[in-house]
Amino acid sequence: MTAEIISIGDELLIGQTVNTNASWLAGELYNAGVPVKQNTVVSDDKAEIIRAITEAESRAGLILITGGLGPTKDDKTREALCDYFEDHLIENKVVLKNIDNLFRKRGLKVTETNQRQALVPSKCRVLKNNCGTAPGLMFERKNKLFIAIPGVPFELKSMVINEILPLLEEKYKRQCIIHKTILTHGIGESFLADRISGWQENIPENINLAYLPSPGIVKLRLSGAAEEEQSIRNDIDALIEQLRKIIPEYIFGEDHDTMQGVVGELLKEKCATLSVAESCTGGMISHLVTTVAGASNYFTGSIVAYDNKIKVDKLNVDSSLIEKHGAVSKQVSEAMAEKVRESFKTDYSLATTGIAGPDGGTKNKPVGTVWIALASKNFTKSKKFLFGHNRERNIMITSIAALNMLRQEILSEL
Amino acid sequence: MTAEIISIGDELLIGQTVNTNASWLAGELYNAGVPVKQNTVVSDDKAEIIRAITEAESRAGLILITGGLGPTKDDKTREALCDYFEDHLIENKVVLKNIDNLFRKRGLKVTETNQRQALVPSKCRVLKNNCGTAPGLMFERKNKLFIAIPGVPFELKSMVINEILPLLEEKYKRQCIIHKTILTHGIGESFLADRISGWQENIPENINLAYLPSPGIVKLRLSGAAEEEQSIRNDIDALIEQLRKIIPEYIFGEDHDTMQGVVGELLKEKCATLSVAESCTGGMISHLVTTVAGASNYFTGSIVAYDNKIKVDKLNVDSSLIEKHGAVSKQVSEAMAEKVRESFKTDYSLATTGIAGPDGGTKNKPVGTVWIALASKNFTKSKKFLFGHNRERNIMITSIAALNMLRQEILSEL
Repeated sequence: MTAEIISIGDELLIGQTVNTNASWLAGELYNAGVPVKQNTVVSDDKAEIIRAITEAESRAGLILITGGLGPTKDDKTREALCDYFEDHLIENKVVLKNIDNLFRKRGLKVTETNQRQALVPSKCRVLKNNCGTAPGLMFERKNKLFIAIPGVPFELKSMVINEILPLLEEKYKRQCIIHKTILTHGIGESFLADRISGWQENIPENINLAYLPSPGIVKLRLSGAAEEEQSIRNDIDALIEQLRKIIPEYIFGEDHDTMQGVVGELLKEKCATLSVAESCTGGMISHLVTTVAGASNYFTGSIVAYDNKIKVDKLNVDSSLIEKHGAVSKQVSEAMAEKVRESFKTDYSLATTGIAGPDGGTKNKPVGTVWIALASKNFTKSKKFLFGHNRERNIMITSIAALNMLRQEILSEL
Repeated sequence: MTAEIISIGDELLIGQTVNTNASWLAGELYNAGVPVKQNTVVSDDKAEIIRAITEAESRAGLILITGGLGPTKDDKTREALCDYFEDHLIENKVVLKNIDNLFRKRGLKVTETNQRQALVPSKCRVLKNNCGTAPGLMFERKNKLFIAIPGVPFELKSMVINEILPLLEEKYKRQCIIHKTILTHGIGESFLADRISGWQENIPENINLAYLPSPGIVKLRLSGAAEEEQSIRNDIDALIEQLRKIIPEYIFGEDHDTMQGVVGELLKEKCATLSVAESCTGGMISHLVTTVAGASNYFTGSIVAYDNKIKVDKLNVDSSLIEKHGAVSKQVSEAMAEKVRESFKTDYSLATTGIAGPDGGTKNKPVGTVWIALASKNFTKSKKFLFGHNRERNIMITSIAALNMLRQEILSEL
């Protein structure tokens, strides 16, 4: 039993919006045992939508349609479904009441526009939207399931988690699809492939390995399907055991781990606190750390010393260090780390200083030159990196490399 | 002449990776006058790839295929293309030399794995990859163009900009597709639709309006196609003139503007500097501001005072204010803004304090309660917001709302 996702929206086809919904949805369906074989993105055009559904019906047993359920005129999904299933729209009183309540809670009056979202195809089963006005619409035909879901990401996620996944679990026997992802940092994809080529050659036929690179991270995903779940799990676990012996220095987590989440757990385990002094990373490290719920347990705060004046005035970095070695130097990175740690009274601190680009490079210090320092009460250490030319990538890779330095340090101390 | 994008990659279908490539590529093609009518995402499976190309060929004149050109065994695109075009692989010496040079520049030896990427289908035209090892592969058949591009985002972008767009411009007469996007902040999608419903009803048949919401922003995109470019441009410009009179308070930019970019331009125009004191936004405002190249012209730095101790010790907020009113209060937000401005000696400052969630809410201050303050040498102002329950959304919406307060202030002073 496989699924297809049809993503509806002009904005996806002109590059205005990135299709994060399809990615999230695909992950959830994969975990639920209903793998997605294809995602098709089409425009807000009734004929295109109908064609996409027709083609998907020939290939998959579960067809999810996202988008086009809004209240405005360019939302065509309801009409397309009515045509496809030879149906007509009727007013659903439960939906209308839900919309009413939502507006009343915010002290607002329902607009006529939104009332239109209570019109649903008469043959469909309506799925509750806890976070917004558009209900989900479900049809069943010849043992195939068609579900239209609102395109607003947090509404979609809520409806999938609360209404759709339970329904799928009830309706379909779960297939055994097992997967495990190992996260690595610090080695490029092709070098990694070389290091583990022997191990890769010995992966059994029924297990698949994929390399998934992103800035600063290469994920290795092992997956297999079997009727007997335990044997596949054992095989995958054994492969991972071997992998951990080959590249222990690069593995930092698995599955849905993030570098910032892993570091957060280590800091909690050690009952330690962290502060950061950022220059070229501009707040990204602080942002990553604070995306983890509960970060207030270990993250005290940071200074983004974007201007050199701030390094001197607020961080108390000796200005002679900047004059002598430049802001992007071992000495300044270590001073930044030491000063913020003392100032914020934390157990650890990180500091970054570098040239993110696209401008600012020189012959001796080209774009991508970054110093990262880590300080504790016992030591200060620093490392120089030479990244690429892309500002956004450099900011992200530097932030992950900094957190990784802290991760390795704490692990060595535990 | 339309295009289709075929995105190849298991990682896209299990939710590991978001399809940012397709979004970016679609935007570039739209600007180049070759609109994308469909994006199909399929797995690293030769048969699936061939099916997708077959179907796309029946619909579009330009077929772009991304992904699967890497050096590892799960990269199937070269094989699939050989099958599809009844071709075989040969070693391309120019590509091999390029790969060699790339490795040599980094002081490394070429791996056997990477040498495989110099094998290309004999019938194709090779496109240079300035940023990586995998060349682009182009085929032409019955007046249709098929181009396979590496899936690594910065390699893809470089190849599209340097090799593919110039090629398309040379080969095809540009269609006149005109579009204009107006960016709004501060009003929800359906309320906005109500406010502009009269205006929307008067949009001519040949122009399309789409609503594109994202956290804190609703984009209004007008687009039309015509043989005679100037008349469509005039119509769209006239519509936008009218729109600016209806909702002037919500419009902050157009097309590729960002709130942080718009604010950056205003600060430059005023020769003014900015500092930030962040609590619940955790570094996000600083990060957004510093994503703009040249931010060092106006952004001095910030303090992320995640722990209340830091608000008192480093920002010098009077601890009695926190005891009396709580950290999430008008008084504390204003004190944070004033203190960071004085401390960093900037013309303006912003401060945020709130409850991003999912925990931390109380009956009086539920999750989503945020105070944002703005200070200048002449005044301090603050505003309370009640956002939703999603941590990530709250952090983003708060950051945009804060920058918007600054934007409105500077505009009122100019």
